[in-house]
Amino acid sequence: MILEEKTLSSEKIYNGKIINLRIDTVELPDHKYQKREIVEHPGAVAVLAITKENEIIMVKQYRKTVEETLWEVPAGKLEIGEDPKKCAMRELKEETGYSCKKIELINTFYTSPGFSDEKMYLYLAKDLVEGDPNPDEDEYVEIHKVKVEDALDMLQNGTIKDAKTIIAILMSKQLI
Amino acid sequence: MILEEKTLSSEKIYNGKIINLRIDTVELPDHKYQKREIVEHPGAVAVLAITKENEIIMVKQYRKTVEETLWEVPAGKLEIGEDPKKCAMRELKEETGYSCKKIELINTFYTSPGFSDEKMYLYLAKDLVEGDPNPDEDEYVEIHKVKVEDALDMLQNGTIKDAKTIIAILMSKQLI
Repeated sequence: MILEEKTLSSEKIYNGKIINLRIDTVELPDHKYQKREIVEHPGAVAVLAITKENEIIMVKQYRKTVEETLWEVPAGKLEIGEDPKKCAMRELKEETGYSCKKIELINTFYTSPGFSDEKMYLYLAKDLVEGDPNPDEDEYVEIHKVKVEDALDMLQNGTIKDAKTIIAILMSKQLI
Repeated sequence: MILEEKTLSSEKIYNGKIINLRIDTVELPDHKYQKREIVEHPGAVAVLAITKENEIIMVKQYRKTVEETLWEVPAGKLEIGEDPKKCAMRELKEETGYSCKKIELINTFYTSPGFSDEKMYLYLAKDLVEGDPNPDEDEYVEIHKVKVEDALDMLQNGTIKDAKTIIAILMSKQLI
C-alpha cells in the first residue's frame, strides 16, 4: 500500500524560540487534499544516568504546559548543529552537576509524531562524577537520586508521568 | 523549593483542527519574566491490543511530520468531552476492525511536556474479536499482528520509533 503524502504547499504560521508551526497541504493516496498541522522542534536528548548504587538521577521540574511539577530524567533540546552525545553530556552536567565517563545511545524515538517532528535521543550514562549544577536561567530543578526499583513503583502508581522518563525507566530494567 | 510559574498574560497564536498554539508570559521563582510556547492538544488514547496468541495489533502509518512510515499501536485523539475508555474502544475498532471484550487503563503520560499539554491514556485490550476496519477519511493504515518477542526486537533494532508504542511494548513484557 502506498502511504506517503505529497506536499502541495506549506504555510509558516509561527517562528519561535523552541518551536515553529507550519501547515502543509498534502495530497493523500486517494488524491484528496488534507491539511497537516506540524510543530517543528530541533530535537532533544534525555539521559538515563545511573550511579554505582543503581540509583537514577532524576529532576523535578515545573512544566507550564501541564501546570504540574514532573519527575523527569535530565533532558534538553539540541542546539543547531549540536552532536546529540555532546548535548547529552552538557545537559546532564548543567542540570544535575554530574559528569560521566561512559555514555551510550540506547534508543531514539519520536515523542508525538501525530503533530510534531520532535526526535529524542536517549542516552545511558555511567561512571558518574558529582559536581555543581549550572542550569539555564529559566530552569528551576530539584535533583533527586531514586533507586531503580522505587522508580518502577513511581511509574506504576502514576507519580512519574513523562513519556521519555517512562521509556528510560522501563529500559533500565534491561540494562542493570 | 517553589517551582511554579505564575501566568501574567496569554496570547493566542493559532486555533487549528487538532492543535492550538499560545504564548504565555510567566513569572519565574526569581521574579524574572519568561515566555512559554504551549501547544494545546485535546489528549489522546493508545491501545495495546494483545491476541490470545500473544500478538500485538500494530498499524503502519505515514506521518507527514517526520516524513516516515511508522509502526504504531492503534491510537487517536479524544473528541471534546469523550470518555478515554470509549475513545480507546472506538479507535481500536475504526483503525483495525478489532473489538475487545476486556479493556483497562495501564498508564497515562504526557508525550512532550516541554512544549505541549498532550496527555496520552494507554489501554490494554484483550479478548479481541476480528472485524472490518472503518478508518477516518484522511487515515491510511496497514494492519499487522506482531509477536511480543518480535516487537521487542523491532524496538531494540530501531524499527519501532514511536514513543507511545515503545512504552506499550515495554509494558507488555510485564502484562503477559
